[in-house]
Amino acid sequence: MSLPPSPLAPARFPYVPPIAGVTLRTARAGYTKRQRFDMTYAELAEGTAVAGVFTKSRCPSYEVQYGKKASMLGRARALIVNAGNSNAFTGLSGRRAVETIVARVAHHLGCQPSDVFVSSTGVIGVPLPIDKAEAGLAQVLTAEPCSWEDAAIAIGTTDTFAKGAGASAIVGGKSVQLAGIVKGSGMIAPDMATMLGYVFTDAAVDHSFLQDMLSKANARTFNAITVDGDTSTSDTVLVFATGQAGGAALSGWDDDGADAFYAALEQVCRSLAHQVVRDGEGAQKFIEINVTGAESDESARVIGLSIANSPLVKTAIAGEDANWGRVVMAVGKAGEPAERDLLSIRFGATEVAAKGEVVRGYEEAPVAKHLKGQEIDIGVDIGIGEGSATVWTCDLTHGYISINADYRS
Amino acid sequence: MSLPPSPLAPARFPYVPPIAGVTLRTARAGYTKRQRFDMTYAELAEGTAVAGVFTKSRCPSYEVQYGKKASMLGRARALIVNAGNSNAFTGLSGRRAVETIVARVAHHLGCQPSDVFVSSTGVIGVPLPIDKAEAGLAQVLTAEPCSWEDAAIAIGTTDTFAKGAGASAIVGGKSVQLAGIVKGSGMIAPDMATMLGYVFTDAAVDHSFLQDMLSKANARTFNAITVDGDTSTSDTVLVFATGQAGGAALSGWDDDGADAFYAALEQVCRSLAHQVVRDGEGAQKFIEINVTGAESDESARVIGLSIANSPLVKTAIAGEDANWGRVVMAVGKAGEPAERDLLSIRFGATEVAAKGEVVRGYEEAPVAKHLKGQEIDIGVDIGIGEGSATVWTCDLTHGYISINADYRS
Repeated sequence: MSLPPSPLAPARFPYVPPIAGVTLRTARAGYTKRQRFDMTYAELAEGTAVAGVFTKSRCPSYEVQYGKKASMLGRARALIVNAGNSNAFTGLSGRRAVETIVARVAHHLGCQPSDVFVSSTGVIGVPLPIDKAEAGLAQVLTAEPCSWEDAAIAIGTTDTFAKGAGASAIVGGKSVQLAGIVKGSGMIAPDMATMLGYVFTDAAVDHSFLQDMLSKANARTFNAITVDGDTSTSDTVLVFATGQAGGAALSGWDDDGADAFYAALEQVCRSLAHQVVRDGEGAQKFIEINVTGAESDESARVIGLSIANSPLVKTAIAGEDANWGRVVMAVGKAGEPAERDLLSIRFGATEVAAKGEVVRGYEEAPVAKHLKGQEIDIGVDIGIGEGSATVWTCDLTHGYISINADYRS
Repeated sequence: MSLPPSPLAPARFPYVPPIAGVTLRTARAGYTKRQRFDMTYAELAEGTAVAGVFTKSRCPSYEVQYGKKASMLGRARALIVNAGNSNAFTGLSGRRAVETIVARVAHHLGCQPSDVFVSSTGVIGVPLPIDKAEAGLAQVLTAEPCSWEDAAIAIGTTDTFAKGAGASAIVGGKSVQLAGIVKGSGMIAPDMATMLGYVFTDAAVDHSFLQDMLSKANARTFNAITVDGDTSTSDTVLVFATGQAGGAALSGWDDDGADAFYAALEQVCRSLAHQVVRDGEGAQKFIEINVTGAESDESARVIGLSIANSPLVKTAIAGEDANWGRVVMAVGKAGEPAERDLLSIRFGATEVAAKGEVVRGYEEAPVAKHLKGQEIDIGVDIGIGEGSATVWTCDLTHGYISINADYRS
């Protein structure tokens, strides 16, 4: 965390509750020259269920391939996160590094290798050094427990602030807690790629239902954000449910408390996703885009991401320019059903264009005022259906270019 | 053309041959405050065939909708280009402006309205002022003929240099000439959107075969370039064949000279397309990306454009950084068939990564030297098939942000 905090960072790390059955530890493996804690270990109680979503990249890291398979078994006892080296595109030696870590942790806990999850984030193409990983493990497995904030810092790479979120819900008459940490801003950093997110809860949840809930929450949160449209080879979100709160395991949407638990899970994921956008490289403004009236929710999401990924829309916002023509352009290029003469666009509370042309008597002053703020709200009504979606992004500034072009990796 | 010429601009406007049956004229309609020629008129001989390709935007200008229909009839007598106002997203008043221009020119030439083509480029959302259009027409229809370079300047908006190309071919024992002009760099300018390209030839070509050839050439040239991935509401390429060179009209690929004519057409389109990239906003480097070994040519093109549109790849090139991991990332996110462990990557003549990992003994020095040049060559072999494609783009620099964010529109 060598850059100053993003201007969109929250004032302080939020309150994140302790989770029964989760113990966090960090250590220095020394993956980079920086003196920092770069290995994080979450030890999980026996009986912990797990669910995961992973990058859709066709060139993922071995960690991702391994995690996809292991998460289908649904059980977890440990998570190891390496920061500073993504171990992606490293062939057989990358695979051996993961297998070494998994074997060492499984031996320590007396569990199955498939109960151990590994993520790595950082430079692509350099095999994770096994000696450094082993040196880190020798410390981390028995290190003093640490806080959520310590762990959130240790999993970070070019992040400018630590990101966490907490929530609670009543399930089967009992209070359950959720805690989450996340790093990254999609594939946005010089070589330090990747969004990694982890949510932990003491609720008891059947792993296949946990997967259903995570997939749904992911579509509405982590998959509805973008910084630059680039997708990492290592993106991973895992949810661990220790079951230490007791009670029968949630196993379907009709169970008592399932809706409340899902709402809390989505809230944690949304907060973490927003923090990722708020740490977008060079970000000066946080942009929410609401698309309504599309043919379907999925169509609305695609249109929203087309707007959110448009360099011209993002630079216009950076320049505080009420350039709604660029929003029309981005709707048009999305490839989704749209009718030019039914389209309406809103900046903040002001309708700018409606039914295919500029609003009669349109005054730019309130729009210009809205665009001077840090929180930008764009509404687009497609006018042909009932589909809707909300996506989030940040503006595109000189800071992005400086971070990604001016400094050699 | 108020910005200094792009560092990638050619030293001078190329030789572009006169085309029998084509007369160019320009005038000042006064669409913007700048004192400039902003209306261009190409008068075409009777019997001219036309073919066109247009933006796939779902929110196109009326000019595009009208041009699509008229080009299907296959006949042309005139082209009018307005610069400074795109007339896009302007509802009924935008449509009336086009209809007024068409009627006026058709009356002047004594031709059908569907023989008159109109393009407009510039600000989105402001109806083209009919009084200014009429004032321009009153001058332009009878103005002194002008050169290709004059016309190339008059159709430009934020272009920093005039773009043209010429070629010739032997068809049926006769020499035929081709001339082309183009403006823009995709949807990259502040409000001045749009790529508009026009090719003229004295060859005799059946309009449906002309359309076949244009569609093929377009896929390999104009549709294989990208500056920022944004798509204008007005992109248009038209080819006009006056037939003044005489001889039987080309009507199919087996005709004598069809291959030679197609090769000349593709050459003109490629030269124009490259000039558009060379005028990309803020461009400092011209990048060619060759993708081989993909499942199909179309799959190769999609992978190539994923690399060419990646902000991280483009900023790495701007920073002269041999960051091949970002190329892996961009291949992975393209969504096309790929196998991480078969992938190879080349920068200039140097193989950097092969079969899923960095090349043994890889030395960065020759790659770093290549990246210091203005012409960058990236090769990616997917290793699974025979499909190939070449795409072109430019780097992403502070100049792009300055032009699009720092100056209010």
